[in-house]
Amino acid sequence: MQAELITIGDELLIGQVVDTNSAWMGRALNLAGIQVAQITSVSDRQEQILEALRLASGRAELVLITGGLGPTKDDITKKTLSDYFGVPLVFSDEAYKNVEAFFQQRGRTVSPINRLQAEVLDGCQVLENKKGTAPGMWMEHEGVVYVSMPGVPYEMQYLMEAEVIPRLRQRFQTPYILHRTFLTHGIGESVLSEQISEFEDNLPEGVRLAYLPSPGTVKLRLSATGEKARVREVMAELEADLLVRLGHYHFGFDDETITGVLGELLLKKGWTMATAESCTGGNISRMITSVPGASAWYMGSTVTYSYASKTDILNVPADMIQEQGAVSEAVVRSMAEQVCLKMGTQCAVATSGIAGPGGGTPEKPVGTVWIAAAVPGLVVAKRFQFGDNRLITIQMASETALHLLRKAILGEGLF
Amino acid sequence: MQAELITIGDELLIGQVVDTNSAWMGRALNLAGIQVAQITSVSDRQEQILEALRLASGRAELVLITGGLGPTKDDITKKTLSDYFGVPLVFSDEAYKNVEAFFQQRGRTVSPINRLQAEVLDGCQVLENKKGTAPGMWMEHEGVVYVSMPGVPYEMQYLMEAEVIPRLRQRFQTPYILHRTFLTHGIGESVLSEQISEFEDNLPEGVRLAYLPSPGTVKLRLSATGEKARVREVMAELEADLLVRLGHYHFGFDDETITGVLGELLLKKGWTMATAESCTGGNISRMITSVPGASAWYMGSTVTYSYASKTDILNVPADMIQEQGAVSEAVVRSMAEQVCLKMGTQCAVATSGIAGPGGGTPEKPVGTVWIAAAVPGLVVAKRFQFGDNRLITIQMASETALHLLRKAILGEGLF
Repeated sequence: MQAELITIGDELLIGQVVDTNSAWMGRALNLAGIQVAQITSVSDRQEQILEALRLASGRAELVLITGGLGPTKDDITKKTLSDYFGVPLVFSDEAYKNVEAFFQQRGRTVSPINRLQAEVLDGCQVLENKKGTAPGMWMEHEGVVYVSMPGVPYEMQYLMEAEVIPRLRQRFQTPYILHRTFLTHGIGESVLSEQISEFEDNLPEGVRLAYLPSPGTVKLRLSATGEKARVREVMAELEADLLVRLGHYHFGFDDETITGVLGELLLKKGWTMATAESCTGGNISRMITSVPGASAWYMGSTVTYSYASKTDILNVPADMIQEQGAVSEAVVRSMAEQVCLKMGTQCAVATSGIAGPGGGTPEKPVGTVWIAAAVPGLVVAKRFQFGDNRLITIQMASETALHLLRKAILGEGLF
Repeated sequence: MQAELITIGDELLIGQVVDTNSAWMGRALNLAGIQVAQITSVSDRQEQILEALRLASGRAELVLITGGLGPTKDDITKKTLSDYFGVPLVFSDEAYKNVEAFFQQRGRTVSPINRLQAEVLDGCQVLENKKGTAPGMWMEHEGVVYVSMPGVPYEMQYLMEAEVIPRLRQRFQTPYILHRTFLTHGIGESVLSEQISEFEDNLPEGVRLAYLPSPGTVKLRLSATGEKARVREVMAELEADLLVRLGHYHFGFDDETITGVLGELLLKKGWTMATAESCTGGNISRMITSVPGASAWYMGSTVTYSYASKTDILNVPADMIQEQGAVSEAVVRSMAEQVCLKMGTQCAVATSGIAGPGGGTPEKPVGTVWIAAAVPGLVVAKRFQFGDNRLITIQMASETALHLLRKAILGEGLF
């Protein structure tokens, strides 16, 4: 069975807004075993929306539509769907209760224009939108299922997870599918695929392996389809096998992140950490503090961007910087040790490098970064070369530093 | 005249990659006076690509195609276009020279598979891709212009700016169009539109005004079309008028950013700055240091996430934190003053707040942030309330802090 997505809104066509909804829906449907064959973005014009609906319904059994459900007059999706299906819009008490509850929670009353949000296609199933006022609508018409949802990402996501995906599973009797994602760091996609080629060549029927690379991390996703008990058993065996093959490159599963994994590890040890950043300029600290609850294990950072601040704030000896350079093993080691003392932590990471575009030399070209990780009784330091893109160097150095600390805590022998 | 975009790749349909190319192209075409009527994303399958091409060419005079130009066998765009136009692929010496130069620069030789990159559609204009190996191709067929480009964003962007947009202007005789974007901070979209309603109601013919809101900043874009000399004259008058109406809310033009504007201001004064961050957790520092050259005016940051670190690193009196709380006017003022002393700077910003989701109280609910800005002889501090989304609060507080410092330097009376 095939699905198509139609995203509606002038803001998508003039490039004011990036259509992130399509990728989100594509991923969610794919994980549920439904294939998206086409994505179409059209403007808020009736004839364009009608043509997109006609063409999509000729190719697919499922059409998901987002956008154009607001109460203002430039939002015409509902009126257009009413014409397309040849059914009137009717007032839904069920949808109105949700609109009322939404405004009540915010201490406001429903204005006449917002009352219109409770109008739905006659004969549709109303999908209750607990995150907003525009209801989702599920319609079946000439053998095709249509679902209309608001374009606000978190409203669409709520409706997909709570209402749409469960109904699709039932309506289309989608096969049981189990996914398991393995997060790896420190190994490129091609080397990784060589290392597990035997595993990949011998996957049992109904099991697929996908590579999802991003800077610093390669994710491996195993997907297995079939009878539930059998799938679970096969997956458990494959997981055990793959973990041995991935070894210390593996650091987490599914939606985990290196910051989350590191935080759990520190909490388990009863340790805290700090960061001493130079070329990463606060980015490691930002990554850590975007996670709620980080204050339980993260004490803070010094961003010593200037030479003087390395000495004034962190007591890195001025003659050490003079002799060895700010981008050196001695300096990052000293930064990591000193920030532990300053912040009263057991662990720390430190970075010093040349993010570019300027500042490179033949010995230390742009992209050179020294990274240190300190744990009780041990400071590990390593030199890396990240290429000539400033923002990618900052991001790669930040992730690498967190991984270096994770390995130092685990005592993994990769240094 | 209307354009359509076709983006090709399985990775778009399974949601592995968000299609940012379409929004980028939509914006670039819109700025050149060309309207995008539809965006279609299809998988790497011949029949799907062919149908998308047929349908698009029936509706539009310009079809831009990205993706599927790699040298591996799952990239079939070139072969499909060859079938669609009924022309063979031919080896292009011109394109090969570029492939060779690309590998030479990287100290590598061209492999047989990469040699295939130099094959192009017979009769097309080759668009030289200086950022990669897949050439762009420009074809005219039955009154419709087709442009095929690689899907790698920076390669596509290079081709659009250097080759495609200039050719489109010439081929379609697009009208002269001048844009000027005004950046504002500290005023919401609706209040702003009231404040300039008279201006907006009296815009001369051929001039449009667009609102581009994002968290913390509302951009206003004036676009004028017509005869070049007249457009420039009209635009200069409108700019002078609008600047008076925007007053101190205006902080920059076009692609400027608050970090860039602040950096220039500091360089002009011969001053440097530092940051003392608590709830923003390094994000201000990251924003500043993502700009190349920031080291000329930025000395560094202390991220004092714990109570103890505020005292140990910044000498904020422990009894002050005890009595007034870490989220208080006294503490942010002290943080801003102390970081100036520690880092030897004339200016600083400091933040302390409750980003959430936990930690709120009735007096200081989640989203409460105290921000201070220090300039020689003056420390300004203000309390803000940013709502209950952690990441938005961090971003809003970061931007607001930079704006507060900018105003303190300029002595603008908004405190």
